[in-house]
Amino acid sequence: MTDRLKLAWTQSAPDHLVVQAQAFVEEWLLRLLPTRDAPPARLHGAMHDAVFPGGRRARPLLCRLVADSYGGGDDEMVGRLAAAIELVHCASLVQDDLPCFDDAATRRGQPACHVVYGEATAILVGDALLTLAFETLANAPVRRAPVAFRLMGLLTAAAGSSHGVIGGQALELEPHPVELEIYHRHKTAALFRAAAAGGAICCGAESDVSRWSRIGELIGCALQLRDDMEDVGGNAADLGKPAGRDAALGRPNAALQVGMDGCQHKRAEVIDAVRELLGPPTTETEALHRLVEEVTRPAVRQAG
Amino acid sequence: MTDRLKLAWTQSAPDHLVVQAQAFVEEWLLRLLPTRDAPPARLHGAMHDAVFPGGRRARPLLCRLVADSYGGGDDEMVGRLAAAIELVHCASLVQDDLPCFDDAATRRGQPACHVVYGEATAILVGDALLTLAFETLANAPVRRAPVAFRLMGLLTAAAGSSHGVIGGQALELEPHPVELEIYHRHKTAALFRAAAAGGAICCGAESDVSRWSRIGELIGCALQLRDDMEDVGGNAADLGKPAGRDAALGRPNAALQVGMDGCQHKRAEVIDAVRELLGPPTTETEALHRLVEEVTRPAVRQAG
Repeated sequence: MTDRLKLAWTQSAPDHLVVQAQAFVEEWLLRLLPTRDAPPARLHGAMHDAVFPGGRRARPLLCRLVADSYGGGDDEMVGRLAAAIELVHCASLVQDDLPCFDDAATRRGQPACHVVYGEATAILVGDALLTLAFETLANAPVRRAPVAFRLMGLLTAAAGSSHGVIGGQALELEPHPVELEIYHRHKTAALFRAAAAGGAICCGAESDVSRWSRIGELIGCALQLRDDMEDVGGNAADLGKPAGRDAALGRPNAALQVGMDGCQHKRAEVIDAVRELLGPPTTETEALHRLVEEVTRPAVRQAG
Repeated sequence: MTDRLKLAWTQSAPDHLVVQAQAFVEEWLLRLLPTRDAPPARLHGAMHDAVFPGGRRARPLLCRLVADSYGGGDDEMVGRLAAAIELVHCASLVQDDLPCFDDAATRRGQPACHVVYGEATAILVGDALLTLAFETLANAPVRRAPVAFRLMGLLTAAAGSSHGVIGGQALELEPHPVELEIYHRHKTAALFRAAAAGGAICCGAESDVSRWSRIGELIGCALQLRDDMEDVGGNAADLGKPAGRDAALGRPNAALQVGMDGCQHKRAEVIDAVRELLGPPTTETEALHRLVEEVTRPAVRQAG
């Protein structure tokens, strides 16, 4: 996380909940990753660099805060799921940066994985983080097997080729142009869906799962709209990664398709829909409202 | 499977069991893969090409035949596990062939995945097959959740970075030379271990799991010793893939380290150990003995 973002998080009131949730996510990630020096040490070192320091951790935070809105749920399963979701996300970032995908030399302000370790290790980092994500659920205590099994179904679908992140990356390579909304739903919203729905499942709130899925999906869409605007209107120094990549690579981008104003408008609509589904802020949902505000906020330069 | 291998399989007596098991494996693989035209169709087409036509299917056959030795076990879970293990194996082959790994243009006598579809799609095929493997277990019927959960732990470990296939691939990239046995145990034997142990788990044969793990591991080692000998003494036309790659790439290879005779000797020792653990052929284990003979048999040119 860049210092600028950290500062934004800690400036206002109900943030102690968010800060607690962030610490929880970092702790679980660190607990689950093999140590840097465990063989093969080169691979495990590269995995650490791909996960720490993190970005906003928006997906695992969403998972944790949804569970918090029910009083916390099963900490062990919330921790495992939150970390697993972030591991899938980190795997997708390492892969996105490869020369044959986005060919991005920097990520989160640091050299990209393949720049430091080479392409072969970067590809293995992607595989290993993806496998670790599922292993994290498979290694839950046996008495949690029914919930772990359920969450495994949720996470494999959110990552997979038909409706998940991998399918979203593949849509970039299809010979025919793809519909922007479907692309966003796969590539970004799928993990947010799983994060929100999974947080509720860890609390036994089965009847609320479809509502949380929808909330997660909308938050993911809002975030992607913001990312699209940043790619078009931002600069590398602020973003910690190259800007203008979508146009250069011919990738679907909402700001390129409907313009910055149209994109802003659409994003406002999506955020309104999230707020309506969340209802007015209460003690239980205040931190979630804060998260939505934070992860969908325009980049500093654009807002200023 | 090449015609030569198919012929070898069907020439002798108890092979109807092996042929039945092969058909079972192909059927489950076909059932679990998304259809070629399901979007994203380019990716799903490439996944089919990476899985069909197969090679020997040694790993899923081992799983099926171990279960058969108990009378068959839970067909649904045997089918899912056998297919999942083969999917992980196919993912690793697609990746091994990439330019930044072995840079092999052919596989099973056909152009390699990245040659036909490009590197980006080939990398996604690897991710997607890996994820589908775990999804296959996660999508088992809910009443099988306890077994599916157990198998998920087995398979994620067999694929993972610490003791599995991905760890084995990473050992090739470590700055210091690696011990050959550890390399083989990760890269090849881990999936055979899981196949044999998992077959027993699907039959509730908990007390036999460690024996089957050992048998699986030894079969995997014997197969790898044969592959090492083929790489040194074989030719591309027989192998359906380039020969002499280990020397060219500086990869650990038993035949290069101890010579063809030493390798032959070691392989015979390993196969003896497997036979001792299996015990004399009975109606229950005859097909397994046949599998061991078949998958560890030297390539035709070397034997002739």
